Amino acid sequence: MRQQMIDMVYRVQDEICNKLVKIDAVDFREDIWERDEGGGGRSRVFSGGTVFEKAGVNVSVVYGTLEPEAARAMGGGHSLDDNDLDFFATGISLVLHPHNPMAPTVHANYRYFERGDGVKEGSWWFGGGADLTPSYLFQEDAQHFHTTLKTVCDRHEVADYPKFKQWCDEYFHIPHRNEGRGIGGIFFDDLRLSDKQTCFNFVEDCADSFLSSYIPILERRKDTPFDKNHKLWQQVRRGRYVEFNLVYDRGTTFGLRTNGRIESILMSLPLTARWEYCHEVEPDSDEEELLKVLRCPIDWV
Amino acid sequence: MRQQMIDMVYRVQDEICNKLVKIDAVDFREDIWERDEGGGGRSRVFSGGTVFEKAGVNVSVVYGTLEPEAARAMGGGHSLDDNDLDFFATGISLVLHPHNPMAPTVHANYRYFERGDGVKEGSWWFGGGADLTPSYLFQEDAQHFHTTLKTVCDRHEVADYPKFKQWCDEYFHIPHRNEGRGIGGIFFDDLRLSDKQTCFNFVEDCADSFLSSYIPILERRKDTPFDKNHKLWQQVRRGRYVEFNLVYDRGTTFGLRTNGRIESILMSLPLTARWEYCHEVEPDSDEEELLKVLRCPIDWV
Repeated sequence: MRQQMIDMVYRVQDEICNKLVKIDAVDFREDIWERDEGGGGRSRVFSGGTVFEKAGVNVSVVYGTLEPEAARAMGGGHSLDDNDLDFFATGISLVLHPHNPMAPTVHANYRYFERGDGVKEGSWWFGGGADLTPSYLFQEDAQHFHTTLKTVCDRHEVADYPKFKQWCDEYFHIPHRNEGRGIGGIFFDDLRLSDKQTCFNFVEDCADSFLSSYIPILERRKDTPFDKNHKLWQQVRRGRYVEFNLVYDRGTTFGLRTNGRIESILMSLPLTARWEYCHEVEPDSDEEELLKVLRCPIDWV
Repeated sequence: MRQQMIDMVYRVQDEICNKLVKIDAVDFREDIWERDEGGGGRSRVFSGGTVFEKAGVNVSVVYGTLEPEAARAMGGGHSLDDNDLDFFATGISLVLHPHNPMAPTVHANYRYFERGDGVKEGSWWFGGGADLTPSYLFQEDAQHFHTTLKTVCDRHEVADYPKFKQWCDEYFHIPHRNEGRGIGGIFFDDLRLSDKQTCFNFVEDCADSFLSSYIPILERRKDTPFDKNHKLWQQVRRGRYVEFNLVYDRGTTFGLRTNGRIESILMSLPLTARWEYCHEVEPDSDEEELLKVLRCPIDWV
């Protein structure tokens, strides 16, 4: 399974980046990096183009021996004990922040873990998901994104769209703002129903569906006219994105504390963000329409 | 002591804000707020002026009963147990972010805590400090700031400048960047040497010295010519400021998890910040000169 997953994430990284290069007409910067404790990755970042303010697509394959505390933070099956400190993890992670405030930010990541021998109950699992973060709400975009994800889930017995959708809303919640980071998608962790191959088939299908879930939305919005107030609101929303990622996101906080590659971990942050004291939106405005949905997630399918 | 400290922080807030109004020629916005669980505060924020991009001076007086977990996170004397859940806290906290990248950001806060009866050993303490965060390093500014703080410390037996200076460097360290947030100042916590009045006298002297530690620096730098590269570096440094505050700062993370007033807690964040992938400074540049000091703090006095 290790090699099958590695092959998949590198293949999908290539396919996604090849598509993004065509859309943005700039090439990506590639960094091949190694991790002192074992493994490494391939980071690709777009900047300076006309479509993406900042976009990163990262693959990593890391392994080694965990400290007991890090092992507990990593999670996994309850049958594991502190002797199962060997780990292996590989995955693809991407965040795309378009310039145009009408075009939503998107995040996706799919990963496979082993802890201990990778054979016994609870010693292997998959995780991942995809979620959309608009500054302005377009119903058809939200519906397209969620419908694509639901269609993938419906093809696989191990997947449960309503459960994964709710999990996503709960995971990307910003408690101190009482807001979601965005309008959700799917999120799953500790997926180890059935056998590895069956889980892999679902995760691969998710990864392969990324472009069809997002690119039609980007194409519709990337050239929409906007003014400086739209851009300002986008910057405020990017501030909330930073708050979520630095305060709550388990991948980010885990990475910062375990000698991960900082530039790859923080690749997810937007190029720029803004914090206005007591920022308020106008009643009945487009900005308020978004906030209502972030405060009370709705079903899009 | 409670009332004496409350009177002091309100008085100092007035004096500092009156001075800032004269420098920036804009008035502050004032919010008087109450906390559901007990107490409240007075927040004053400057924005839209020519000198400060964003500046906040906040006073709070809060009290109530803590959850046991929050009580442990709050700290205090080791003689306290889980029955000492009543708490009282008052303090002044300020962060000033000037527009001009040659003028440093400054932070200061001084506070008094009680947990339990406020009488027995370990049931009361003071904390606080002040630190400077330049984007460009001016030796004379660093020396002036540190010398002012050392002079205050030297007037009080309960204070220890070398210890508080080192504590500050350690507290404001960003491990994942291997950098300090800035060039330090003083930091102290759990100060309960001698009696309350003796500690208070030191803390009041610190608070009263804020303007003389910072305003001469601001006056020297606020009108210095700068170009867009200077501004870009300032924005990158502000990104690091956000990283420290959201990931590591105990006041911020504690506040976000305990139903504090969000806008007052996040008042410390800059108006704007920037995250460039793999940002690097030129060798032998002014930017590199700052980084060297952030990576290896030096003695300024």
